[in-house]
Amino acid sequence: MSVKRYRVDPKKFRLEKAAARYAGGKLKESGSAELLAQKIKRMAALQERLFAENRRSVLLTLQARNGAGKDSLIKHVFSGMNSAWCHVVSYKAPSSRELDYGYLWRHFRDIPARGQIVIFNRSYYEEVSTTRVHTKWLGAQPLPSNKIDKKFWKKRFDQINAFEKYLVQNGSSVVKIFLNVSKKEQKARFLNRIYNPKKQWKFAPEDLEERRKWDEYTPVFQEMLTKTSKKYAPWYAVPGDQKWYARLAAADILIHALKKIDPQFPKMNVEKMKQLEKAKAELESEK
Amino acid sequence: MSVKRYRVDPKKFRLEKAAARYAGGKLKESGSAELLAQKIKRMAALQERLFAENRRSVLLTLQARNGAGKDSLIKHVFSGMNSAWCHVVSYKAPSSRELDYGYLWRHFRDIPARGQIVIFNRSYYEEVSTTRVHTKWLGAQPLPSNKIDKKFWKKRFDQINAFEKYLVQNGSSVVKIFLNVSKKEQKARFLNRIYNPKKQWKFAPEDLEERRKWDEYTPVFQEMLTKTSKKYAPWYAVPGDQKWYARLAAADILIHALKKIDPQFPKMNVEKMKQLEKAKAELESEK
Repeated sequence: MSVKRYRVDPKKFRLEKAAARYAGGKLKESGSAELLAQKIKRMAALQERLFAENRRSVLLTLQARNGAGKDSLIKHVFSGMNSAWCHVVSYKAPSSRELDYGYLWRHFRDIPARGQIVIFNRSYYEEVSTTRVHTKWLGAQPLPSNKIDKKFWKKRFDQINAFEKYLVQNGSSVVKIFLNVSKKEQKARFLNRIYNPKKQWKFAPEDLEERRKWDEYTPVFQEMLTKTSKKYAPWYAVPGDQKWYARLAAADILIHALKKIDPQFPKMNVEKMKQLEKAKAELESEK
Repeated sequence: MSVKRYRVDPKKFRLEKAAARYAGGKLKESGSAELLAQKIKRMAALQERLFAENRRSVLLTLQARNGAGKDSLIKHVFSGMNSAWCHVVSYKAPSSRELDYGYLWRHFRDIPARGQIVIFNRSYYEEVSTTRVHTKWLGAQPLPSNKIDKKFWKKRFDQINAFEKYLVQNGSSVVKIFLNVSKKEQKARFLNRIYNPKKQWKFAPEDLEERRKWDEYTPVFQEMLTKTSKKYAPWYAVPGDQKWYARLAAADILIHALKKIDPQFPKMNVEKMKQLEKAKAELESEK
């Protein structure tokens, strides 16, 4: 599929109008597992090139409302890659040591090394969304000034854009997926967790607290997505209500990012060829 | 299969006599891919329990001679798990900052969190094997004394045993796999890397240097394996010459370790049930 349709255009994007469901078309749920398996194979093949090349890297960030299916996406899509070269970092509330630094510190620590893919399961985008809804949490982060106004958030957007530009200029591909779940589907998933004894352990009462703030979150996400979707580090708002579809879209977004940087197996130079010839001769003459 | 047969018994184990090939029996290469897929499913199911329980963890360490197939094992066996809860840490030569600490420091930093599985692709065992063959490398690690004798290595074994005992007593399961490749098979794999244009990038001339020291390594591995194979943190010496077989054995070893700690989904207590009931009522009464 063309992933472009989900790219957040800062001028046009409206979260309230963004699709939470795939409207229908060529793709069907039946057969989607096989299609996903093909895409994962493609992803893994490009990943091998990325690692072999050892020059660029990919940072893929996942953000969403609760219950949108981030964890399931990681399990079904990104677990298909070679785990030696792909790391998932899931962020919880910062520790007191982490709070002693600015909010980007722990994420900077976890960026992908050359040749690697890192998936951020939540990220510093929490610090311009959840924290913006719960401004009291900023109290735990002693800031240079206590003035938390529109300008404060604008500065954070600028900081994030500058950070991501730095990553891109230094060889990383930065892509961000916002899994867009509808309020109705979120309810169904929460109830499923409550009714299904095997899923009850996943239920957190805080999820419901956040749900009550649904409408407070909408403009906050709207601003976050439009202020930080850049050509060099785009956001994709992917319909999240049908898991099978979200998986295909997420796989395509990663494939698109990898194809764009087009990693290459290292070329053999004269020096390296000489080494290979020498090694071959030595091995073959062994008694 | 019973994994016990590969467990290193410090009193009986002899690396020279340890099998590098599966002697044959019930298992065949044909059909092994399906069998492995089943085992990976089992592994992933146990992994979910481990994560849900959030109380114990698993550290699985891989060591081997070059070309034994560690990377391929990670790709084909351990990549089958949910990558949100399983991390692979591949160690290269220590950085100058890492050298400023004792040799366990960077590995301690990377141990599994509760609920997690961590795979060490090489580990501190390099510091009692490769470093023991190349004692000059110790020069880069300013040590309290320059006396590098039998006693020095004995102390390192004791330190490693104490470290692993600490991990076990604090909730980790510690298992270690030595992939046992034969000298003949290593040669075939090196030549394959040299002849296959798609694999040439993997060839490192240092691999051949190490091969020349094959016989120096044997007693060093022998001592490492027997001095640090403990009931609480056993070594398994797994035949490495047939990749399909090594994969099945490695999967079984991890399954065995997980079954032994037998992680459980959290029990719902009265408090938690009340929360669920309340959430259900709230969701269902939403307009």
